[in-house]
Amino acid sequence: MRPARNAGIMSVLIVGSTALDSIKTPRAENPRLLGGSASHAAVAASFFAPVRLVGIVGADFPARYLALYRRHKIDLEGLQIAEGKTFHWSGEYEVNMNNRRTLATELGVFETFLPRLPESYRNTPFVLLANIAPSLQSHVLDQMRRPKLVVADTMDLWLNIAMDDLLKLLKRVDGFVLNESEARQLAQEDNLVAAARKIHRLGPRHVIIKKGEHGAILSSGGKLFLSPAFPLRRVVDPTGAGDSFAGGMMGWLAAARGPVEAGLPLAMVYGSAVASFCCEGFGLAATTRASRAAIEKRVAAMRLLTRF
Amino acid sequence: MRPARNAGIMSVLIVGSTALDSIKTPRAENPRLLGGSASHAAVAASFFAPVRLVGIVGADFPARYLALYRRHKIDLEGLQIAEGKTFHWSGEYEVNMNNRRTLATELGVFETFLPRLPESYRNTPFVLLANIAPSLQSHVLDQMRRPKLVVADTMDLWLNIAMDDLLKLLKRVDGFVLNESEARQLAQEDNLVAAARKIHRLGPRHVIIKKGEHGAILSSGGKLFLSPAFPLRRVVDPTGAGDSFAGGMMGWLAAARGPVEAGLPLAMVYGSAVASFCCEGFGLAATTRASRAAIEKRVAAMRLLTRF
Repeated sequence: MRPARNAGIMSVLIVGSTALDSIKTPRAENPRLLGGSASHAAVAASFFAPVRLVGIVGADFPARYLALYRRHKIDLEGLQIAEGKTFHWSGEYEVNMNNRRTLATELGVFETFLPRLPESYRNTPFVLLANIAPSLQSHVLDQMRRPKLVVADTMDLWLNIAMDDLLKLLKRVDGFVLNESEARQLAQEDNLVAAARKIHRLGPRHVIIKKGEHGAILSSGGKLFLSPAFPLRRVVDPTGAGDSFAGGMMGWLAAARGPVEAGLPLAMVYGSAVASFCCEGFGLAATTRASRAAIEKRVAAMRLLTRF
Repeated sequence: MRPARNAGIMSVLIVGSTALDSIKTPRAENPRLLGGSASHAAVAASFFAPVRLVGIVGADFPARYLALYRRHKIDLEGLQIAEGKTFHWSGEYEVNMNNRRTLATELGVFETFLPRLPESYRNTPFVLLANIAPSLQSHVLDQMRRPKLVVADTMDLWLNIAMDDLLKLLKRVDGFVLNESEARQLAQEDNLVAAARKIHRLGPRHVIIKKGEHGAILSSGGKLFLSPAFPLRRVVDPTGAGDSFAGGMMGWLAAARGPVEAGLPLAMVYGSAVASFCCEGFGLAATTRASRAAIEKRVAAMRLLTRF
């Protein structure tokens, strides 16, 4: 859980939602778990590099969740604690764990959130704009000084209600992470290889399409990379798996030497390994029980699983 | 197109449907193409090993399709030419190329087909029971003398109307190839890793689950292997891709040295390579234009695409 610290490791700034998730599955009900894109991404990245969190929670935010962030050495100077209620999402998974239904969304303090970066955050070299309104992702970028790598994640909601903001953001990012159906929707193209090409034209040099249990595709520098997903015999709760993937990937890149281009494939595999832990428990339960050693073991296993 | 022949290469017997396919896509209409599971599998296998075909066609079967088989050095002693009409399937693909709708099925001479193996076929070491009624697949097995490897493919239809026959067959095969949704249906289990385990209990030591553009999973000897699919920017017609995968895999195994267990992963990648050509043209058009060298190129590309 303690990230190794040495001169070569850079920090990752992560902005996104910090929320309480109430998650129903066919087997269990779990009220007010720590959730949100930034929470999952930050914990995932913390296995590799120091993390700086930007987000907002309400006065009702449980102290035990602040303690959880701290156990992962996550810098909380950028986490606003505001009067009001923490963003609360409740949803339900169907038997097959692939179809998710939102039952309720209470924005709370998120409604008026405007990310303000502490001065100490503005030089952070690696920036992950985890899923949040693209206008807020842009607002964070406005406050950064020449980051080394900027990667944005998103969700279908923003394609439906904030496409203009998203298109503006895409012109400013190096990498863009989105899932299969979002890629098809954004590119208006069913074939994912063709969709990735079209998405490059919108700005990002690195396009990463997440396919859940089928892994992920990287399109970068005219080449493709097919990342495996770690095969799980049982998925308990996939909420946050995509955020964990992006966070683990960025954390690994921040700790790696050499050019980002060369490191991206292995970074994605590390992201997949962290995401697989995320799926094995509700909320962040299984992710926080993981260790760097356990992650390395899954990466090694994925090498064997894909060797021919 | 001419398979290399040397002492180490064994033959593959392939039984399945030999049909005329009329395929509609949003872009084109293609009447009476050479199709059927055995046709696709036999041509795919022919790139690697000598193939012996077992099937039936009617008197209306175009001579040019017999010539096509012969160009691929496919032994036709087991192909019955009967009074009546060749099995004719017509179907339609939707825009996304994933949803297929059957428009008409005219069984013709297939209705009374009973595979009779020529004496010269009965010692064939590699047997691919391509998609056809499981009772006919069993009937072929009854006529074989101690084959080295028996692999069966299937389709959802047999799970729905001939489950008892299929379960009897599964007790007698070494390997079983089926697609994602068939695996879920057969195992009554949504998670594919868990589904593969359950399918082992039905008989086959090697369970191969095809996931289309997402590749395939092998479960064998307590281990998994994740095979990539070759990423295509444009899919013209996926009909027969699964059959090509199984045929290419079996052809490669028949030509390989060493134990089947060790060869299966690479055999699947070769199968994927042949299947990718299949998708690039209607019917067998693109597969027959492929070459061993072109296949090797795609296998090499898949090594790079999955390297981390």
